[in-house]
Amino acid sequence: MNSNCQSLAEKSVSQPVCIVGLGLIGGSLLRRLTAAGYPAFGWNRSASTVQQAAADGMDVSGDLSATLQRAARENALIVMAVPLFALRDIVSQIAAHAPQCPLTDVVSVKVEVLRIVQEAGLAATYVGSHPMAGTENSGWGATDPALFENATWVVMTGGADDVTARVRDIAVAAGSVVVETDPVSHDGAVACISHVPHLVAEALSVAAVTESVGGGDTALRLSAGSFRDGTRVAGSAPALVRAMCEGNRDAVLPVLAETIGLLQQSYRELSTEGTCETLVEAGYAAHQRYRTVMNELGR
Amino acid sequence: MNSNCQSLAEKSVSQPVCIVGLGLIGGSLLRRLTAAGYPAFGWNRSASTVQQAAADGMDVSGDLSATLQRAARENALIVMAVPLFALRDIVSQIAAHAPQCPLTDVVSVKVEVLRIVQEAGLAATYVGSHPMAGTENSGWGATDPALFENATWVVMTGGADDVTARVRDIAVAAGSVVVETDPVSHDGAVACISHVPHLVAEALSVAAVTESVGGGDTALRLSAGSFRDGTRVAGSAPALVRAMCEGNRDAVLPVLAETIGLLQQSYRELSTEGTCETLVEAGYAAHQRYRTVMNELGR
Repeated sequence: MNSNCQSLAEKSVSQPVCIVGLGLIGGSLLRRLTAAGYPAFGWNRSASTVQQAAADGMDVSGDLSATLQRAARENALIVMAVPLFALRDIVSQIAAHAPQCPLTDVVSVKVEVLRIVQEAGLAATYVGSHPMAGTENSGWGATDPALFENATWVVMTGGADDVTARVRDIAVAAGSVVVETDPVSHDGAVACISHVPHLVAEALSVAAVTESVGGGDTALRLSAGSFRDGTRVAGSAPALVRAMCEGNRDAVLPVLAETIGLLQQSYRELSTEGTCETLVEAGYAAHQRYRTVMNELGR
Repeated sequence: MNSNCQSLAEKSVSQPVCIVGLGLIGGSLLRRLTAAGYPAFGWNRSASTVQQAAADGMDVSGDLSATLQRAARENALIVMAVPLFALRDIVSQIAAHAPQCPLTDVVSVKVEVLRIVQEAGLAATYVGSHPMAGTENSGWGATDPALFENATWVVMTGGADDVTARVRDIAVAAGSVVVETDPVSHDGAVACISHVPHLVAEALSVAAVTESVGGGDTALRLSAGSFRDGTRVAGSAPALVRAMCEGNRDAVLPVLAETIGLLQQSYRELSTEGTCETLVEAGYAAHQRYRTVMNELGR
């Protein structure tokens, strides 16, 4: 018991973390780990983000090469926290400056990230991960050290044990609950519970401003909670939504087809029989199952 | 100024309100008006609701004929607050017991309600309305006198001035902001901002439990805010969702077709060109417009 505590205490002060990209996820993680006593440092491309983060007491830099060289010297766990479209460039910089460092990422797709990491020859030290947390806001001002509290943090199976342990360690330090799965299962799941819901929110938003079907400013003025919540994530930065959905295209397309098919069936039933019973009953039952799972998780 | 104040004060103590149906909307309104000093009374079919409401100090009854006869004696404004599928029966009872009373409703469709009221010969005293507020919960336990605070309360144009004034009066007393429109415009708007969002939430819920596309309990366990908010209203009672969508079929179908069409276009673009730029950019722009309208309303 005593040695366990000692080992945890040692770990928390001896194993540095280097966060590459200080947007909502990376920035929130840097704030959380710093507050938890980790020797955590980070890099961001934007000078204003670096200034804001430094003003908040973070150990940050705008020099990527120097940051990665420091990570290599200190054997830091490198956390790639940039959007998918920026990842290939970051991976090649890591391969150049810190190829031996344990490596993870917090990108919302896993098959494509693994492919990029493999192509750069970094697969042996890589264990992908994905904290299931976020908001529709972005930038340093939106960061929140409590963002990951009680969230699920998905860690990929099959990686090297020591890297896996370090990834799990930061997930737990961030307040999350670790769930392990493989990249293909992960990508199918997030297509269902995040990526397609984002696309659907975009479509609902567009329909509500389409005057030919009753949309427009008057309709928006009448809107209440169902519209606000159903379209909230359409307020996300378009580049980030595109990066998620396009980077997970192979998993998104079947889920999108399934969703369209369900709506088409309901359209036919409503137009020919005057009822939407089939979809509404199935949707309610599915939502009850979701509530059961959430209750089991205490959420 | 003085006479205005006097007239408002007189109005608030002299003009009774009879609420028929004490679910989430009707029950919340009864609680609010009672707290505001209105001589407000109500009826509900369920004995347990009547008991709970009476225990909370409300003036309630389970006898519809007696309640409507009292409304006729006291010249109460009758507020029909039952689901659309129960409305025809209520309207015929009103025609039998209180045909001279000023009449409104708080149902979420307006063309179909107007048709039912016209068929019963009650159109001259009727002014439809719709408070844009609610939650996915139902029953007396879910009622909340603050439910309508700062909400939009839609009142139909073209009705008798004295009835319109009494409907506006309770909307303002409930804390809402009155917006006037006609039944066809209203129904198109709510198809866009409520009914189709409900159907879409049902479809997202079903897709997320469909194992062939990556759904199921593991997917649900990974879910976070985007799924919770995007599917919240799929937790609504199926009978209520069906009543809204089926009762507004003529307006729902074009909006549903538009939404399906947008998703199909995005499916094609993502599968052939690898991008979902068109939908995501349009959705973000539409959401910005929604935010602008909400900001103007101070929400």
